[in-house]
Amino acid sequence: MKLPETYTDLRKQTLEQEGMKYPGKALVAMELEPGYERAKNRMLPYIQAINEAHLIMLMEQGIVDEKNGNVILKALGDLDQEFYKNTVYDGRYEDLYFYMESRLIEATDGIAGNLHLARSRNDMCVAWSHMAVRDGLLQAMEQFLYLKNAVVLFAEEHKDTLYVIHTHTQHAQPGLLGHYFLGAADLLERDFKRLCRAYDAVNQSPMGAAAVTTTGFPVSRERVAELAGFSGIIENAYDAIGNSDYLTETASVLGLCALDMGRIVTDLLLWATQEMNMIHVADGYISISSIMPQKRNPIALEHLRSSLSVLKGMADTVLTGFLKSPYGDISDYEDIEDSVFGCLELFQKNVQLFRAVISTLEVNKELLESRAYESFSVVTDIADQMYRSYKIPFRKAHSFVSFLVKKAGTMDYNLKNISEEFFSSAYHEFFGEPFAFDFTPISQCINPWHFVKCREVRGGTGDKAMKSMIDRAKKEVEANKLWIQEHKKQLCEAGEKRKQVIQKKLDKF
Amino acid sequence: MKLPETYTDLRKQTLEQEGMKYPGKALVAMELEPGYERAKNRMLPYIQAINEAHLIMLMEQGIVDEKNGNVILKALGDLDQEFYKNTVYDGRYEDLYFYMESRLIEATDGIAGNLHLARSRNDMCVAWSHMAVRDGLLQAMEQFLYLKNAVVLFAEEHKDTLYVIHTHTQHAQPGLLGHYFLGAADLLERDFKRLCRAYDAVNQSPMGAAAVTTTGFPVSRERVAELAGFSGIIENAYDAIGNSDYLTETASVLGLCALDMGRIVTDLLLWATQEMNMIHVADGYISISSIMPQKRNPIALEHLRSSLSVLKGMADTVLTGFLKSPYGDISDYEDIEDSVFGCLELFQKNVQLFRAVISTLEVNKELLESRAYESFSVVTDIADQMYRSYKIPFRKAHSFVSFLVKKAGTMDYNLKNISEEFFSSAYHEFFGEPFAFDFTPISQCINPWHFVKCREVRGGTGDKAMKSMIDRAKKEVEANKLWIQEHKKQLCEAGEKRKQVIQKKLDKF
Amino acid sequence: MKLPETYTDLRKQTLEQEGMKYPGKALVAMELEPGYERAKNRMLPYIQAINEAHLIMLMEQGIVDEKNGNVILKALGDLDQEFYKNTVYDGRYEDLYFYMESRLIEATDGIAGNLHLARSRNDMCVAWSHMAVRDGLLQAMEQFLYLKNAVVLFAEEHKDTLYVIHTHTQHAQPGLLGHYFLGAADLLERDFKRLCRAYDAVNQSPMGAAAVTTTGFPVSRERVAELAGFSGIIENAYDAIGNSDYLTETASVLGLCALDMGRIVTDLLLWATQEMNMIHVADGYISISSIMPQKRNPIALEHLRSSLSVLKGMADTVLTGFLKSPYGDISDYEDIEDSVFGCLELFQKNVQLFRAVISTLEVNKELLESRAYESFSVVTDIADQMYRSYKIPFRKAHSFVSFLVKKAGTMDYNLKNISEEFFSSAYHEFFGEPFAFDFTPISQCINPWHFVKCREVRGGTGDKAMKSMIDRAKKEVEANKLWIQEHKKQLCEAGEKRKQVIQKKLDKF
Amino acid sequence: MKLPETYTDLRKQTLEQEGMKYPGKALVAMELEPGYERAKNRMLPYIQAINEAHLIMLMEQGIVDEKNGNVILKALGDLDQEFYKNTVYDGRYEDLYFYMESRLIEATDGIAGNLHLARSRNDMCVAWSHMAVRDGLLQAMEQFLYLKNAVVLFAEEHKDTLYVIHTHTQHAQPGLLGHYFLGAADLLERDFKRLCRAYDAVNQSPMGAAAVTTTGFPVSRERVAELAGFSGIIENAYDAIGNSDYLTETASVLGLCALDMGRIVTDLLLWATQEMNMIHVADGYISISSIMPQKRNPIALEHLRSSLSVLKGMADTVLTGFLKSPYGDISDYEDIEDSVFGCLELFQKNVQLFRAVISTLEVNKELLESRAYESFSVVTDIADQMYRSYKIPFRKAHSFVSFLVKKAGTMDYNLKNISEEFFSSAYHEFFGEPFAFDFTPISQCINPWHFVKCREVRGGTGDKAMKSMIDRAKKEVEANKLWIQEHKKQLCEAGEKRKQVIQKKLDKF
Repeated sequence: MKLPETYTDLRKQTLEQEGMKYPGKALVAMELEPGYERAKNRMLPYIQAINEAHLIMLMEQGIVDEKNGNVILKALGDLDQEFYKNTVYDGRYEDLYFYMESRLIEATDGIAGNLHLARSRNDMCVAWSHMAVRDGLLQAMEQFLYLKNAVVLFAEEHKDTLYVIHTHTQHAQPGLLGHYFLGAADLLERDFKRLCRAYDAVNQSPMGAAAVTTTGFPVSRERVAELAGFSGIIENAYDAIGNSDYLTETASVLGLCALDMGRIVTDLLLWATQEMNMIHVADGYISISSIMPQKRNPIALEHLRSSLSVLKGMADTVLTGFLKSPYGDISDYEDIEDSVFGCLELFQKNVQLFRAVISTLEVNKELLESRAYESFSVVTDIADQMYRSYKIPFRKAHSFVSFLVKKAGTMDYNLKNISEEFFSSAYHEFFGEPFAFDFTPISQCINPWHFVKCREVRGGTGDKAMKSMIDRAKKEVEANKLWIQEHKKQLCEAGEKRKQVIQKKLDKF
Repeated sequence: MKLPETYTDLRKQTLEQEGMKYPGKALVAMELEPGYERAKNRMLPYIQAINEAHLIMLMEQGIVDEKNGNVILKALGDLDQEFYKNTVYDGRYEDLYFYMESRLIEATDGIAGNLHLARSRNDMCVAWSHMAVRDGLLQAMEQFLYLKNAVVLFAEEHKDTLYVIHTHTQHAQPGLLGHYFLGAADLLERDFKRLCRAYDAVNQSPMGAAAVTTTGFPVSRERVAELAGFSGIIENAYDAIGNSDYLTETASVLGLCALDMGRIVTDLLLWATQEMNMIHVADGYISISSIMPQKRNPIALEHLRSSLSVLKGMADTVLTGFLKSPYGDISDYEDIEDSVFGCLELFQKNVQLFRAVISTLEVNKELLESRAYESFSVVTDIADQMYRSYKIPFRKAHSFVSFLVKKAGTMDYNLKNISEEFFSSAYHEFFGEPFAFDFTPISQCINPWHFVKCREVRGGTGDKAMKSMIDRAKKEVEANKLWIQEHKKQLCEAGEKRKQVIQKKLDKF
Repeated sequence: MKLPETYTDLRKQTLEQEGMKYPGKALVAMELEPGYERAKNRMLPYIQAINEAHLIMLMEQGIVDEKNGNVILKALGDLDQEFYKNTVYDGRYEDLYFYMESRLIEATDGIAGNLHLARSRNDMCVAWSHMAVRDGLLQAMEQFLYLKNAVVLFAEEHKDTLYVIHTHTQHAQPGLLGHYFLGAADLLERDFKRLCRAYDAVNQSPMGAAAVTTTGFPVSRERVAELAGFSGIIENAYDAIGNSDYLTETASVLGLCALDMGRIVTDLLLWATQEMNMIHVADGYISISSIMPQKRNPIALEHLRSSLSVLKGMADTVLTGFLKSPYGDISDYEDIEDSVFGCLELFQKNVQLFRAVISTLEVNKELLESRAYESFSVVTDIADQMYRSYKIPFRKAHSFVSFLVKKAGTMDYNLKNISEEFFSSAYHEFFGEPFAFDFTPISQCINPWHFVKCREVRGGTGDKAMKSMIDRAKKEVEANKLWIQEHKKQLCEAGEKRKQVIQKKLDKF
Repeated sequence: MKLPETYTDLRKQTLEQEGMKYPGKALVAMELEPGYERAKNRMLPYIQAINEAHLIMLMEQGIVDEKNGNVILKALGDLDQEFYKNTVYDGRYEDLYFYMESRLIEATDGIAGNLHLARSRNDMCVAWSHMAVRDGLLQAMEQFLYLKNAVVLFAEEHKDTLYVIHTHTQHAQPGLLGHYFLGAADLLERDFKRLCRAYDAVNQSPMGAAAVTTTGFPVSRERVAELAGFSGIIENAYDAIGNSDYLTETASVLGLCALDMGRIVTDLLLWATQEMNMIHVADGYISISSIMPQKRNPIALEHLRSSLSVLKGMADTVLTGFLKSPYGDISDYEDIEDSVFGCLELFQKNVQLFRAVISTLEVNKELLESRAYESFSVVTDIADQMYRSYKIPFRKAHSFVSFLVKKAGTMDYNLKNISEEFFSSAYHEFFGEPFAFDFTPISQCINPWHFVKCREVRGGTGDKAMKSMIDRAKKEVEANKLWIQEHKKQLCEAGEKRKQVIQKKLDKF
């Protein structure tokens, strides 16, 4: 390890190692090489699409004439993406695009230079970036919908699976597993909506902003947007280049999704413990011990726990990246967009694994039901019932029930032991007068099934309430599906449109 | 400092310090006292509103009869909020609500116990929390709109303020200050929309969810929602209690707003440097030195820089708080909601200060204009023009302009020195043949004003393009204003409705 | 809601609301008022200490003569902190310090103006900030040590409490609860060390840096540091003003502490579930249900879960605050230091509550022990033993044990059923030859107690290994205690020294 | 897009896609494949080292006899790392290690099964992870030291480069560029120390902890640690497996480093603006415009700005990952350690680029010096001087200077115009009496060079003060270098030791 001892030596040594000219090696390592790789692995189809869309518009607006335009169109058609995928950064060109452009220009005797009229690397690169995030987001949303559908179907499957709800780690009330998962589906529905809105933010075209003030040529920004599959344009040219919304909103929503999924995973991990024994994660997602075959480690859930937290951290990294960066044309997004792509990929993997776990999860129904009888989780309804049927004031009824439960506790009774006889004697003891009512309403209440089924208020566990939520959840899945199909179609159709226009032009030519 | 040496001593000492019974002193200090303070300072109006709305519904549904109901209504009317504001946590009641309830019950000979029918502390407390965030958000949005309007008006004021745009710290192109701020207004418009959506997430009622499964009583959740000013209900009862959206989406959006505002502040701080000297922050927002009177420290901008970063951090804290927490009835939100309220307050302060700075900011117009002539920021248009007017292929024209600029540089020329003579001679030198075109198109291009004014593409700096963006921005401000007014009205009307219903009932009684 | 419609109106309206002169109302609300409150509530003792230390040094260095110096010393002595605590920001002075200075100057006929020789608000304010963080940190560390001691004593108390360790939510191996908590104590020891290092970073004096380049007067920076209780000085004057280490390192370490404590809390919450039933949180830290008296919600643990996450978020906020801020004299730290004070306070509350819970926690020892017999968590040792005693190759022994466990499983056997007979027959079946060894070594292994007690490797669960860790842990607590006492003493002695020097000077005078 | 409509279909479809057995495809994609890649790309040398160290110890302790041991030693020696680098995950083995072990066992007729005696995958995998982080950290520290040395040499080079310090964006005081960078070097020194401490946390061996409670075999944990190059062991076995310190402290320190470097970068970006024009970033690290050759975009600094923020975000992701995870044997770290490796790599790239920029940075010295004369940044010293030389009370002198500066301002004077005549007349005007002192002391003060050179207080800008700081900085670089060399040596020697012991054993055999 040799450290230079004077600045002169340091400078000399550095220039020797790094080179006197652009680009220095350290800049290559940190930016140019990764940027080249990113472009060749992710951006090629978008580069092509933007080239086509922009050129068609230039020709339609008469900025490039038909003759020259067709020469370039042909050269674009001849461009071999595989060729570029096999290249590596070698310093001859600043980036992949310049390499491509130089070959296009060469192949067209300089005519392809006109492709760059009325645009700049600024709007062009940001447009690719939008398109790459757009595709990643759409794929992620499709996977997310598969998960959401799985959650809804799992909820329906368990619409009659009785269990005791834990609150604050303790048994609280009888509930239905399907009710819990319908709630989870609603979480995911709200997240899906947020993803849709993030997609809308992404799906706006910056093209035509040129460097940052548009151009003096009479371009049609709307036409380029349409041909590149965008829903509209980001109007203000400064904003089109300078805003970070398409990255920051996307990341922020992915972070919220990770948060929500992670909360469900926390519950599942608890339910999978040996002591809870509520659920069995399928064989594909557990690891076993070669020496203790009964040990079933639900490692998929553990990985989801940590990986979703990592995802949340990566999402926040995107925001941190832009913090206090100037508004305008900055290089910063190049360093940050990899975090967005990383988020999108990690998101997909988590969502797929989560879906697989839910889709194959087994529930220990009998155990869950039997536990519902072991605690006194129904007792709030007894007080309700005494108010309802015997007109006993609510707080009084409440105090009596508390007395009843304490008494039962001292006798090691559970729900099943609350007979009319026991109830009457407690009543007598508490109120100082014999129990002179019909016991039927109370005996109904003692049943956890009654507890859940009588809750027919909207959003409750009663049959109709549950059915109505299941129906809505399914309708929402349908709507989500439609949304995805339509947005996929928009992208396909833009590609088709470009192809047709080009064909027509070349045919005429 | 005395450390116990055995666990027995430790336990004994702790129980002596902390007390044997609920609540231990450390729990009081961390939770119960802050919770009491939070309730008394923030929640009293919401407690009252929920009590009224719930009771009216109970009576309308026949769950509480008119007689008892009216007794409670009267007691609620007599309740003195100031009294509770002057109390402190003293351990007699677990929280402020229980204290209030006990006094209500006492004042009504126990009848007010029925107020708690068909609800639980779960839905009740979450409802207050929603309402407090809702009010905070609405106030914050109102302040945000004042800022947004200021940005739009500032943009309009500077729709003809020429300046050189910096990109990558260097002079890039002529631009208009108003163009920049119209871009900023679009940032804020997107943020405003996000705030609206967060508000919608907040403005849904959990009431009727009771503990987590609804209730066996035939309540009308919609009616309570309406009377408490909510737009709808969170249907699934588990979700109504368990979801954290109203806090996490709110925080997440405030974080994005902080990020966007902070990017503008970064630019302003640069522009305020002595060397840039582009803007003068008004006297109210700078600090001066007693000994160097010419020093004008724009401390308001500095504080905005750091405070907006703190805001972003606080916003993320809300998400971090919920990370990996179970989905369902948890106490966690009590520890987290203070961060949300903190965000909302800090947000308002930042927004108000930012607005004040923008509303009083002076711009060094002459200096900005003169700088636009000092650099060669217009030259891209010369190449465009040569392609347009002389049909010289774009890349060729581009190379020539590069040659021209380099030549001018060696002679220490700036834009104003680019005469026809100089241009012709450079042309001859570069192309090897005399310049045989009309110079007028070029001489136009050399003017930065021409550069900005010729950009009539949508979103550009041309007059019409600018006007169209200003008009849209003003329309959006109008729409924002309407949104706020309508949502304020919804809250007012809910209060009115409750008052009228109660009055009618009490009159009849 | 009235929005101005022109920039002129906006400006006029703003100047009317905000005032034409420094300070504008919005700046007061965001900075000056909170800053005044912060100064009066937190900084008064440090202002006084710095004034005294600086003045003593000025006199000792002959920069201020004895006569003038003593006049100021007397005025400082007469200064009434309570008076300032009862003031509020009223705009007459920029901040509390200027107010104090003006009154000092008035009281000394202008002589106290010399107190400000050779210093600046920069070094002075940063010095107070260091001192306030220093005190907060020292208090926090003292509380943290109480917690650490409690964890060590709890570990000792449970050095023979057998339980089954969970890994991946499943039963894994027999362990000792004390072993777990000794591990936890080691976590806390490392955190304590980090806190010590953060304290060292905080406990360096910036005084003498003046604005940012020191001063032309021959001050003694070391003497001021000594008199203000600092361990040394931050040498480079630019760095003394510009660095954020004392805030960022402190916050970063508090975040790591929160993380570590939070991981323990996660385990405790699991152990407190009704199904696990491993621990009972004491009455002071649970909430009960009025109607279900057997329900014991360990809300203290729930609050710790979320509050420690909030703490981690607040800690990160401090770093976020400084991100991309210039290095040097900036106002930013004023907006950020409240987050540091907030962290320190929340940290203390969490630590105190955590200590109280641990110090009163009851463990369900019998249940834990019985569970250790119900699983096959010891079986790895059987394979070890067969290798050790019978020289059966390890992998072979391992396969046999796996066979044995599976066979036991089919017969619903648990550990207690693994008799010599059962073992022999399985052996015969697996190896195809009769079991011809002494069974004693195996029968030992079947006992979970044997499993834990035989692990005498350093760091293991054997008696000696445990004792050695307990002894070390206790020694470390002693060392921690000494550290705190010494650092408290350093602060006390600095105060004493100032008092004595001043007394001597005033006596002579 | 086809969504199953019943849970039965969903389950069936999923099992078809994913397989019925371990491992499901989604688990492979998220964990097993990335884990395999991580192991083969990063872990092979550490796997080998741990195998060797553990086996040597087993033989030395007599747990494995010489004969069997030597068979395994030989097989380990024959193991071809390149072979494994060319494999991919194919599902036959759970992970790379199991694949290697199976081949070892096969090659030794089962004897190599004994290699796994007295250890577990837990301590083994965590040990590799420690070793990989250790190597990454050591490399990162070496690069960091190269940067630090460059900063020190740059500071020395500019120890007499006069400039005006900006505070709050305005000119404040004359300073020396070298003084600023010596401050920066002190930042980096504190960061280096933190890296050393993180390294110490990483450089402790978990080996011997086995699953989580150690083992019944009489292993020597110290010997394995020594042979694997560790400084010591993590004593408590539970802690050895369960703690996250080696990842979280490392990440947290890298985050602080990123923060500190980023603050310097913020200043450099400001200094590189066209208007400031203080520094010229070398050709290797700027991008130029093909059409505006004078435009020098310092993109390396821009990339550092954003990339260091991303680094800070990634660092925090590591902490977020572990938040609320149980303490103990968890799978979570597998998902998190990639973020740590990512941090280490991004850190290195940033550090290298930053060093290259600093090592080749040119400073516009004349301009900087001339600016120092253009402002009144020296005036505080005039007041000091009047107190010192003329015994005018400080506050009075201060007021006069303020008057003087204002007067000069109205006449558009700068420092160079402050003649004795001008000073005398201002004096007369202000004090009402003629100036009757020697002007020499004042005339000295008016010179910015005098301002910086007279500051001989420790940490100041005077020659001796600067020299002393430069000397210390260089000594610290030497100490840092020694630290790195010693720690590299420790790792080398451990490898050597293993080689020698093995050779001796095989020779004897």
